[in-house]
Amino acid sequence: MDKAPWITYRPELKVLDATVRDGGLINNSRFDDNFVRGVYETCIAAGVDYMEIGYKNSPDVFPKKNYGPWRHCEEEDLRRIVGTNDTNLKLAVMADAGGKCNYKRDILPKKDSVLDLIRVACYVHQIPDAIDMIEYCHELGYETTCNIMAVSIAQEVEVQQAVEEVAKSSADAVVVVDSFGAMYSEQIRTLVNRYMMAIKGTGKIVGIHAHNNQQLAFANTIEAIVCGANFVDATMAGIGRGAGNCSMELLLGFLRNPKFHIRPVWEFLHKVMPTLPEDIEWGPYPEYIISGQMNQHPKDAIQSRASKDSNFLEFYDECIRDM
Amino acid sequence: MDKAPWITYRPELKVLDATVRDGGLINNSRFDDNFVRGVYETCIAAGVDYMEIGYKNSPDVFPKKNYGPWRHCEEEDLRRIVGTNDTNLKLAVMADAGGKCNYKRDILPKKDSVLDLIRVACYVHQIPDAIDMIEYCHELGYETTCNIMAVSIAQEVEVQQAVEEVAKSSADAVVVVDSFGAMYSEQIRTLVNRYMMAIKGTGKIVGIHAHNNQQLAFANTIEAIVCGANFVDATMAGIGRGAGNCSMELLLGFLRNPKFHIRPVWEFLHKVMPTLPEDIEWGPYPEYIISGQMNQHPKDAIQSRASKDSNFLEFYDECIRDM
Repeated sequence: MDKAPWITYRPELKVLDATVRDGGLINNSRFDDNFVRGVYETCIAAGVDYMEIGYKNSPDVFPKKNYGPWRHCEEEDLRRIVGTNDTNLKLAVMADAGGKCNYKRDILPKKDSVLDLIRVACYVHQIPDAIDMIEYCHELGYETTCNIMAVSIAQEVEVQQAVEEVAKSSADAVVVVDSFGAMYSEQIRTLVNRYMMAIKGTGKIVGIHAHNNQQLAFANTIEAIVCGANFVDATMAGIGRGAGNCSMELLLGFLRNPKFHIRPVWEFLHKVMPTLPEDIEWGPYPEYIISGQMNQHPKDAIQSRASKDSNFLEFYDECIRDM
Repeated sequence: MDKAPWITYRPELKVLDATVRDGGLINNSRFDDNFVRGVYETCIAAGVDYMEIGYKNSPDVFPKKNYGPWRHCEEEDLRRIVGTNDTNLKLAVMADAGGKCNYKRDILPKKDSVLDLIRVACYVHQIPDAIDMIEYCHELGYETTCNIMAVSIAQEVEVQQAVEEVAKSSADAVVVVDSFGAMYSEQIRTLVNRYMMAIKGTGKIVGIHAHNNQQLAFANTIEAIVCGANFVDATMAGIGRGAGNCSMELLLGFLRNPKFHIRPVWEFLHKVMPTLPEDIEWGPYPEYIISGQMNQHPKDAIQSRASKDSNFLEFYDECIRDM
């Protein structure tokens, strides 16, 4: 007799909402307080485990005149929304390796912050920098993850080495990141299996962060879960750079743990999401499908969509010519 | 060493374009000739194997005053678009079991028709009727398939029996149809594996027709292909009832057989798709996500979206109350 594992659940599986962080790549992190508070309250009501409230980027590199508060996540901005956050929801920020984050200056000791988790994002070649950041933040008292980006264009031996380095570090989790929305389920399976193998016995967990260029963000997230990933990213309505991410309303419909509640998410989508300015756009538009299929960074696709002179057929031809 | 099967292909895998047939459920099959001819020419240029040009429904049940020509697919309407169709593209229609199609009157002998394939759609309880239709059409000289619909609400023993009956028939293929867009990849895998087992040794093939309520139509189509399905449905831009179907532009990006060409599809989407009236709507909107998650027929979701007084939060609450 076949089994029906999809109606069961793993209590240890954690969901992270990345709405304000990844969505902030669309609008330079200029969400108003009402929106961010809406996400916060929705996460609490929905039983979400972590909310990634923005980037911990350096104001030297991302000047405050061009970027909103959720690009720097200073303590007073955080507390304006969450107070002392006396809830079960943990708060996360993303800190990029490679000089985008002045972490020794800008990340406070855990005891002075409402943040719980620092997610260190890096490319494979930045692993040593990322590990330094992870160890530093771990020493400060935070949970940490290592999010290795753009693995669809990295050498497999480099990815393997990177994950093995993370396995030796203090990171609590290592996250598979399909930055370009280029990967099919078989590739996700291969990668998650490798990550699972590399961290075996360390007590660490594997996460997944998928992009929706080919309408596969949710499917790839499911695939990762089936393979054992227990730290799963989603965003409200799938908001995120370019094609966006795995939608929270899809993910919570799949997860069977009764601690999760989907209605608060529908309520947020009905009441708060429409307050966003109309020029904030994301989704699996043709340009993003094309960049995903070609395993490319979405920046050219974003530029093409922003230009009035361009259309996706021209964009396709351009990509073909440039290959 | 891991393998990378996703960069190889199976020459025997066939693609069917269901744009005009499934899309016709949105507008009572009232596409203009320019649109239908555009799909036809695009399928030829893209290397698609079959084009399903509409339904072979009875004008008694679907009166001509309410439904366009692609609901009945009379020979003169077909020939106005395709002439004698001296191309490699085969033409298909869908004929519903259960009295919607007066097949003994309306389906001509193959020698008098430009059609190549009759796809008989049925629910599990209509299998005997469907088999009669299949045998009749087979005798007339057509290729035939049996598309068993709504399997996500059918008893497994009934589905199993149905597929075994089809395996004994003259049908060339049996198609897994996720009518409600309710199924996850693990369920698709289970079903396709069962269908594959049931037809083993008969020379028949298995097909997949997925709906996109949960943004899983493309992913589930890939899953079916990985499990051995060799007859695969897609539509231009995913057009189809409710949430729509697997998008041709996604599918052809995944398939590696060099006989397929994606550019003609982008060209169609750029030039012809925008000629559709603005009120023709499809996609994974919240109402369709909800009906997919609840494994329900999309008709209530379609009605809710059409009503000005309704919104998806109310629709969600209604669905919960009604369960």
